[in-house]
Amino acid sequence: MNNQPITCSTSRIAGCTFAIYPMTDQFVDVITASLKEVDTSKVWMKTTDVETCVRGRISHVFDVTKALFLHAANTGHHVVFSGTYSIGCPGDSDGDVYLSEDDERLNTKLLKRMSQEVAGKFSLYPLGGGNYMNMIYNQIEEMKLHGIDVSSIHYATRLDGDGEKVFDGLERVFTNTENLKSSHTVMTTTISANSPSKKEKINE
Amino acid sequence: MNNQPITCSTSRIAGCTFAIYPMTDQFVDVITASLKEVDTSKVWMKTTDVETCVRGRISHVFDVTKALFLHAANTGHHVVFSGTYSIGCPGDSDGDVYLSEDDERLNTKLLKRMSQEVAGKFSLYPLGGGNYMNMIYNQIEEMKLHGIDVSSIHYATRLDGDGEKVFDGLERVFTNTENLKSSHTVMTTTISANSPSKKEKINE
Ligand SMILES: [Ca+2]
Repeated sequence: MNNQPITCSTSRIAGCTFAIYPMTDQFVDVITASLKEVDTSKVWMKTTDVETCVRGRISHVFDVTKALFLHAANTGHHVVFSGTYSIGCPGDSDGDVYLSEDDERLNTKLLKRMSQEVAGKFSLYPLGGGNYMNMIYNQIEEMKLHGIDVSSIHYATRLDGDGEKVFDGLERVFTNTENLKSSHTVMTTTISANSPSKKEKINE
Repeated sequence: MNNQPITCSTSRIAGCTFAIYPMTDQFVDVITASLKEVDTSKVWMKTTDVETCVRGRISHVFDVTKALFLHAANTGHHVVFSGTYSIGCPGDSDGDVYLSEDDERLNTKLLKRMSQEVAGKFSLYPLGGGNYMNMIYNQIEEMKLHGIDVSSIHYATRLDGDGEKVFDGLERVFTNTENLKSSHTVMTTTISANSPSKKEKINE
């Protein structure tokens, strides 16, 4: 049971458990192509029938998940990314060696070729306590400056805009929460591309 | 921003934001048929292009989400449910009137017709603090008695077994956390049916 460990690891390895859902009969091909094109060599990675887990430095965890999703979305199919980013407890150590990777992101060139509008949402749970409202407000304002529409929805914050910028905004929120010394941070997100549903603008 | 409200509502309305992902070109038909067959009249419900939110009593929130997913999975397509169950903060009040519905579940008959193996995972975040380990251990033991395989995975607990029993187990964990007076409980879950991937048994 990893839900509520008694002790916390001191390792600050970040992780993301996620899945990418292509709503097409060709879903296996879409995922396989994405995994082939994206460079995952700076993260620890494990895939099961339910999900994929990547672990490493925050920058590479976001670089890989962003690239995998945007590559899949680039097929034009309706594709959804659902993921949970986590850092801090629970303190297992798989992949800790990847923390020594350098800062250079491996999928920048791949991402430059792509342009993809997305509709997403996220919730941030700073489980270590603390008040992160001001930081989140500032990050939200920064996302708006990058052209992202931000709105409040039940249990979450909705983000509409360029896919890369949405992921980059999420990475900044997550990184800043970590920098503010939250002992355990969890961020859940769902990001959708090419939905046939009419996009409904929500400003509650 | 609903992520970290300053004040908490006293309403104990439960909610689930979720989406069902059928990995088929006919994904719209699968969802539409599910929505047509499942009785959602005891929950408040709102659907956007990204997700659906249902709110009401815990029992009906689980009854509806379980029935929608299992109906979709019953098509035989690879279908995944991804959802976040929440109770307590943040304290908005949409659907509070549905708390006065009675206990009778509306989709019991529909569910009786179905039999579906699933592979799922969940994480429980009792954001109001408190130690829920003993309760979770007890619930895990009860799930095992119902024939569910339970294993520990990164950031979550994996559940393999009958779909109805998996949802019922999640409902018991969620209900018991609420009964133990956690001021705000969040449970995230992903449940997969008919995956073509070989099921890998994980017992770490
Ligand atoms: Ca780009």
